[in-house]
Amino acid sequence: MPTPPQAERKAPRRSADDLADGVLAGDRAALGRAITLVESRRPEHRERAQQLLTRLLPETGKAHRIGVTGVPGVGKSTFLDAMGTRLTERGRRVAVLAVDPSSTVSGGSILGDKTRMERLASDSGAFIRPSPSGGSLGGVARKTRETMLLCEAAGYDVVFVETVGVGQSEIVVAGMVDCVLLLLLPGAGDELQGIKRGILERVDVVAVNKADGERIDAARQARQQYLSALKLLRPASSAWRPPVVAVSAREESGLDDLWSQIEEHRRRMTESGELDGRRRLQRLEWLRSLVEDEVLGVFRRAPEVARLLPELEGRVEAGEITPATATARLLTAWEGGGG
Amino acid sequence: MPTPPQAERKAPRRSADDLADGVLAGDRAALGRAITLVESRRPEHRERAQQLLTRLLPETGKAHRIGVTGVPGVGKSTFLDAMGTRLTERGRRVAVLAVDPSSTVSGGSILGDKTRMERLASDSGAFIRPSPSGGSLGGVARKTRETMLLCEAAGYDVVFVETVGVGQSEIVVAGMVDCVLLLLLPGAGDELQGIKRGILERVDVVAVNKADGERIDAARQARQQYLSALKLLRPASSAWRPPVVAVSAREESGLDDLWSQIEEHRRRMTESGELDGRRRLQRLEWLRSLVEDEVLGVFRRAPEVARLLPELEGRVEAGEITPATATARLLTAWEGGGG
Repeated sequence: MPTPPQAERKAPRRSADDLADGVLAGDRAALGRAITLVESRRPEHRERAQQLLTRLLPETGKAHRIGVTGVPGVGKSTFLDAMGTRLTERGRRVAVLAVDPSSTVSGGSILGDKTRMERLASDSGAFIRPSPSGGSLGGVARKTRETMLLCEAAGYDVVFVETVGVGQSEIVVAGMVDCVLLLLLPGAGDELQGIKRGILERVDVVAVNKADGERIDAARQARQQYLSALKLLRPASSAWRPPVVAVSAREESGLDDLWSQIEEHRRRMTESGELDGRRRLQRLEWLRSLVEDEVLGVFRRAPEVARLLPELEGRVEAGEITPATATARLLTAWEGGGG
Repeated sequence: MPTPPQAERKAPRRSADDLADGVLAGDRAALGRAITLVESRRPEHRERAQQLLTRLLPETGKAHRIGVTGVPGVGKSTFLDAMGTRLTERGRRVAVLAVDPSSTVSGGSILGDKTRMERLASDSGAFIRPSPSGGSLGGVARKTRETMLLCEAAGYDVVFVETVGVGQSEIVVAGMVDCVLLLLLPGAGDELQGIKRGILERVDVVAVNKADGERIDAARQARQQYLSALKLLRPASSAWRPPVVAVSAREESGLDDLWSQIEEHRRRMTESGELDGRRRLQRLEWLRSLVEDEVLGVFRRAPEVARLLPELEGRVEAGEITPATATARLLTAWEGGGG
């Protein structure tokens, strides 16, 4: 389909092919522009972004994808800075992405993330990209997934996807990574840091951070308590039980042990075929969720539906009509409206 | 809309109004026929079922709705038989429904459930209805919700909804009740009875069953371990922390204590306004899920979509094309096909 000239002028200057070459060559500026393209909501940009991704797809999938979650204050940035630097020193190329649907900042947040991860930000072997701003969680998730593919094509072989650790974002991140790393604070049982809905069952590796100074004993206790709690849960894999490791990102202790566990997890999942299975399921799930979003969007934007929905929702919520009655009315209006 | 004569003949003989009168009068035969009507998939029955439910809606919502979950073998039937009988002896009217999407039995299973709950089955203050048979979990859930409304209109003031405790059915049940009761076996840490994905955060009351004979000590230990595990989770309500009670359904010990906790939960939730809030949300969620099922069904049944979907899914799963590309092709085909 030819791109109309107006769109051409507003789209980033380089063609999808030029951009793809730049990304594959590991050109950071090209990678940055490619990410800006996949983050754009303009239909003509979306189309070009898909051309770019289709071209790069054979070069993706090679990275170790690790989700990092934990409540605000647990020290995710300090951890990523320390662990990321450790990995680049060993020759790995590390990308750090974020999923934060509450993020409304634009360019400024890059500086923010770079300040949070000072060493990694000036490390030529690392690439930090803040959360796409604005939009629904679904939109943020789509952009982050596509950005992950771009980073893989650019040769980053470890991709950390950080979540803010609130709401549903960590569940969404769990659906796009090979390994979910949960960071916890010493002081288990402290309900302020309570583990949230659904994430405990998705965790592959747990690290109790800030195991330093006076908190070493508390961290050891917390480690035992979390190990017991995890034992009560049905394991997600027969080939792996989530280990709990005490670390200090600030003092950089325990990080090698933690990384060994993360690599051992990958080895076991690869050998058992679960890694490939998980990724296949993630791709199908991603398709399903995109299709559902689009189809339900078409439905909700239909004028007849938009007109009826608020009133029917109110009546259902108040218990005046049954959900089935409201559904039947909406569907009749939609199909009658040529939707 | 007038019902065509052919449909009239195949539908249950009584009109929706006659059936409604029978249900409201507490006539068990009328209730049974009403449930058969809401369980029917025939479009003309669905329409009449909605007339019936609309008529009865003002008389619903008064029951205490309790979900009962736990792995097979934990003793749910024995528990329901003992607890239900205890409640009818105090003048309560008790309905026991089930959500089991694997159930393919028809009439025979009523006998099965009645054998499982021997005393309750011959109790004039109780009504037992097995899971609607066949169909998707969504379909089974809809029928069970509607059956619950019918039971409420018929004057049952305690409704237990039992799950098989496998798959997603317990999450679905949690979405239709006021209180989720999880039954566990003594021997915590025994991973065979591991708590499943997502249910731990939805639990309102926990009972360790089979706390009798030689298992009393194990049950007490299990109670402590589960209390500790629950403390690690962020509480779903600020007004309530899930208690863990040791009971023996067989010896009928601990049941009064357990029922007090269930009633205390209801009192607190009512006072804090959370019960009303939960039910409002459940109704909206029910509407959302019905609408999504219907709309996505229209999409999937469109010939252009049905033709393209399997191939596109295969290519996405194999990583040959991006989910976004596949989605765009499906939507274009659908909208082009007049869907």
